[in-house]
Amino acid sequence: MPELRKDPLAGRWVIIATERVRRPTDFAHAPAERRSGPCVFCAGRESETPPPVLVLPPPGRAGGSAWRVRVVPNKFPALRIEGDLERRGEGVYDRVSGIGAHEVVVEAPEHDAELGMLSASGVGEVVRAWRDRIADLKRDERFRSVLVFKNRGAEAGATLEHPHSQLIATPVVPVVVTEEMENAGVYYRYRERCLVCDVLRQELDARVRLVIEGPHVVALAPFAARFPFEMWLVPRNHAAAFELADNNDLDDLAAVLRVSLRKLDRVLTDPPYNLVLHSAPFGAAESPSYHWHVEIVPKLTGVAGFEIGSGFHINPVPPEDAARFLRDASAG
Amino acid sequence: MPELRKDPLAGRWVIIATERVRRPTDFAHAPAERRSGPCVFCAGRESETPPPVLVLPPPGRAGGSAWRVRVVPNKFPALRIEGDLERRGEGVYDRVSGIGAHEVVVEAPEHDAELGMLSASGVGEVVRAWRDRIADLKRDERFRSVLVFKNRGAEAGATLEHPHSQLIATPVVPVVVTEEMENAGVYYRYRERCLVCDVLRQELDARVRLVIEGPHVVALAPFAARFPFEMWLVPRNHAAAFELADNNDLDDLAAVLRVSLRKLDRVLTDPPYNLVLHSAPFGAAESPSYHWHVEIVPKLTGVAGFEIGSGFHINPVPPEDAARFLRDASAG
Repeated sequence: MPELRKDPLAGRWVIIATERVRRPTDFAHAPAERRSGPCVFCAGRESETPPPVLVLPPPGRAGGSAWRVRVVPNKFPALRIEGDLERRGEGVYDRVSGIGAHEVVVEAPEHDAELGMLSASGVGEVVRAWRDRIADLKRDERFRSVLVFKNRGAEAGATLEHPHSQLIATPVVPVVVTEEMENAGVYYRYRERCLVCDVLRQELDARVRLVIEGPHVVALAPFAARFPFEMWLVPRNHAAAFELADNNDLDDLAAVLRVSLRKLDRVLTDPPYNLVLHSAPFGAAESPSYHWHVEIVPKLTGVAGFEIGSGFHINPVPPEDAARFLRDASAG
Repeated sequence: MPELRKDPLAGRWVIIATERVRRPTDFAHAPAERRSGPCVFCAGRESETPPPVLVLPPPGRAGGSAWRVRVVPNKFPALRIEGDLERRGEGVYDRVSGIGAHEVVVEAPEHDAELGMLSASGVGEVVRAWRDRIADLKRDERFRSVLVFKNRGAEAGATLEHPHSQLIATPVVPVVVTEEMENAGVYYRYRERCLVCDVLRQELDARVRLVIEGPHVVALAPFAARFPFEMWLVPRNHAAAFELADNNDLDDLAAVLRVSLRKLDRVLTDPPYNLVLHSAPFGAAESPSYHWHVEIVPKLTGVAGFEIGSGFHINPVPPEDAARFLRDASAG
């Protein structure tokens, strides 16, 4: 059973595996195993995965077994679904048993599909799968938060080619969400307005960092982008929790996400990237100060180097330039 | 002139280059340029670098031009030393002109030396150079903080082979330091004790994560290590600011650092790594709640993947195991 531990100085929870390592070399230079060609996520091999927790469209409705998105438990989960949750202290330290859910969202039946290249309704099913799974996991009272993320390309950490994203439900709140809640909370207490609503208002006025203006969702290059061509997708209407998003917001998120990914592929020639959904923890779904959004970070440079250790990023591409290149790129 | 920008949601400052990018492909897949063989940092080519800001031992004392450590301005600085500091707001955003110092600490005259393989006094000169440069940069009232870091190996972001570390003096406080100050401050307000002093006391009792116990500095695997074989070097006596460290602490830091790096090399076969010094910002050098330390993170896995975006790390090696392997490794 893995364990969650909190670093008291950095305020961050880490998942620590507790299986014993035989020798450091077992781990040291483990190459990312990246399987090519048809895999267990492909259409026709459904029996080789654990039973799905969600299938879209729902079986039967589309007539027969044709599916477009399947969500299955991860066979090598970072956290385990079975067991009782125990939270305990040990002097200055805090531990929580490694209970959680870790699921794989298979984004298409075809092995060589890409999220951005699916039809608009195909991307819509993926986004809907994220929402439906979060809403379901939220009912488990052991969990406090869900991380939704996608790694595209080996350099971004993907170990499987088949297009997929992942969900991890955790009994603690990830530090990035805690800090955003805190910063947005300070702003709200001072101004009684949502920080991200104000950011969006200012960006829609300034118009120098906008990439796509959908009716419900806007894509922009953030003012203080850490990485070249970083993009945020932000709903126009205030909403803290992604799982409460209505169909208008979801449909437009899908449309804007699809075009964003196509533009990224066009401008940067199919870069590896990470996508992370930032959404309020379960206890704060109605927060007036937090605002859900999606962050997409292309993985262009080999490493972040000291930046991971220091949190201090150097971005060689002004976000205004990145936004202009992305705006001008065709999404065809 | 680059610019510092603050992300209001994440609370983090980023250095943004403002030179215009010609085409995205100019940047997109820029390979890290890593020059092999003798370079301008090698003995005998001193005239090819900008004039040094520090030479150790001081010229003359050692008789002639023999140096062991040279600190020179970075030829491609992330921030510029000349200019007036301007801090200004723009709606919800904050900007600071990209004033700062960016220096390279050449750790040895030999091109193929390694920090851990230097003599104890050689490592001592490097550590002393960090302290002396911070103390000097602190006199510049435009600066609020100095980052000292080292990237070893191309995978860790090093673009030069010659052993070196870097200093970046900034007119703002990096977010990692801000957050650590905040968390340590909350602890102090509650308990009136330094958090890291308490961590050290508990680790010296528990003895399961200790790696090296020097008379003044202890090396340990942190309780909630983000990465396999992550190590922290912590002074036993409370001190917020590294630049105020006395010679006992510096000498022992050098000794413990040297052995730590040798053990890492032994256990993980010369891994790439990042080293970051965490020290109080200039305004908080006497803080009773902050405690300087050095963090060393081997770069073993290809990427941090979504972990950079989410702050949520999964560490497959329990720090207790890592500490045991490191403790048992010879430092010969």
